[in-house]
Amino acid sequence: MTRLFRAGYPARAALATALAFAAMSSANAADVVHHSNGTNFPIARAVEVPAGKTIYFHSGLTPTPLDPKATPGTPEYWGDTRTQTLAVFARLKDSLDKLGLGFGNVVAMTVYLVGDPAKGGKMDFEGMMAAYTQFFGTKEQPNLPARSTVQVVALAGAGMLVEIEVQLAK
Amino acid sequence: MTRLFRAGYPARAALATALAFAAMSSANAADVVHHSNGTNFPIARAVEVPAGKTIYFHSGLTPTPLDPKATPGTPEYWGDTRTQTLAVFARLKDSLDKLGLGFGNVVAMTVYLVGDPAKGGKMDFEGMMAAYTQFFGTKEQPNLPARSTVQVVALAGAGMLVEIEVQLAK
Amino acid sequence: MTRLFRAGYPARAALATALAFAAMSSANAADVVHHSNGTNFPIARAVEVPAGKTIYFHSGLTPTPLDPKATPGTPEYWGDTRTQTLAVFARLKDSLDKLGLGFGNVVAMTVYLVGDPAKGGKMDFEGMMAAYTQFFGTKEQPNLPARSTVQVVALAGAGMLVEIEVQLAK
Repeated sequence: MTRLFRAGYPARAALATALAFAAMSSANAADVVHHSNGTNFPIARAVEVPAGKTIYFHSGLTPTPLDPKATPGTPEYWGDTRTQTLAVFARLKDSLDKLGLGFGNVVAMTVYLVGDPAKGGKMDFEGMMAAYTQFFGTKEQPNLPARSTVQVVALAGAGMLVEIEVQLAK
Repeated sequence: MTRLFRAGYPARAALATALAFAAMSSANAADVVHHSNGTNFPIARAVEVPAGKTIYFHSGLTPTPLDPKATPGTPEYWGDTRTQTLAVFARLKDSLDKLGLGFGNVVAMTVYLVGDPAKGGKMDFEGMMAAYTQFFGTKEQPNLPARSTVQVVALAGAGMLVEIEVQLAK
Repeated sequence: MTRLFRAGYPARAALATALAFAAMSSANAADVVHHSNGTNFPIARAVEVPAGKTIYFHSGLTPTPLDPKATPGTPEYWGDTRTQTLAVFARLKDSLDKLGLGFGNVVAMTVYLVGDPAKGGKMDFEGMMAAYTQFFGTKEQPNLPARSTVQVVALAGAGMLVEIEVQLAK
């Protein structure tokens, strides 16, 4: 080995190796890719998180009350699905601010909706979307997450109509 | 420092360091490990994704209609759970093709089933499995994902009986 | 290039580069961060998994029977939500032992509960928590996962009241 290092080539090789690692590092720092679903519906088909990113698993968030003085668990207390979803995103923004993240870092989202008695027990998908589209797929924040939305039976608190869980990458 | 580099040893050390990084890189490129659950049930107990992999978060997919001319939302329109699950996997295959991925890259899966009126309102777990086992745990595609399956109240479209969300690694 | 390597500087530069990679490697080995939610409720607001970690996707686990001699599907067979959750965590411990992991490696958790007939069809959130708090947020195991808890219609087996899915990092 010693003999090899007397010549310039192996040293160059070592540097080349180092540069190869630099390239690898650069690859690791590649951007997150939000793959379009080819429609106008504002969710990504898939989001690709390259190696080298920090991934954040965020707890599901439920809303804060619209009117804390109303009877707990009532529609007056929580508001409708749109209102509750806005409250969830307000809480999420607060949390992301503290983490140094924004809605654009959301790579995946699971939306759990509860049937709205005012909608015959069906989930108010449109109400949720009316809130969601204020934060995702806008000019200011075009990044769309991969998303699943399902109607569940109930959430932790009576009258809650929405819980949203996200994963993020930076 | 300069003095040290006049001898062969430090250069060798630099190369050794570089080689150590090469080994690390190799470790980063380690294969995804699908840990068996020790039974014949074709899901993994857990799937281990080593550092250095790209992770894909895929949106939940619902089926395409079996008979688009039938009345929307009816069993004739969507088909039963097995048929709907096959339609979901067909859509997933299309999406993965575009991403340069295959079913073997699926590391995690969440299956959301809706109760089938034709099964007394219970989810048709067997129907879902009849479709699932055509793509996972076969000779051609032995890789099994970690998976959870739950019965939810409803999905985005009336009459949909299955939505499947996956995460992948490459 | 050859000329450059005759001097000490480039060799030093190569080493500096190598050391920079060592630092990068060290950054990659940064600890998982469990961000507090600022309350006493024992789940993390979010868990941050830095680059360089191995991520494990674990299948959802359902309980083992409390009394395998009882009639399958009955409360005697499965036990209540607290009992079932303890059984799930016992199965999880077994699995994590085999993977060289512990509850402290859990970064995210989804808890699917089914309404308990003995609780008027509501999920027994408190029963689940009574089991959960034996393993998360204790002196011995203070690490808290990001978590979502929802009530679903049913799980794979009749009478099952809880399924828990986790993601882990090491």
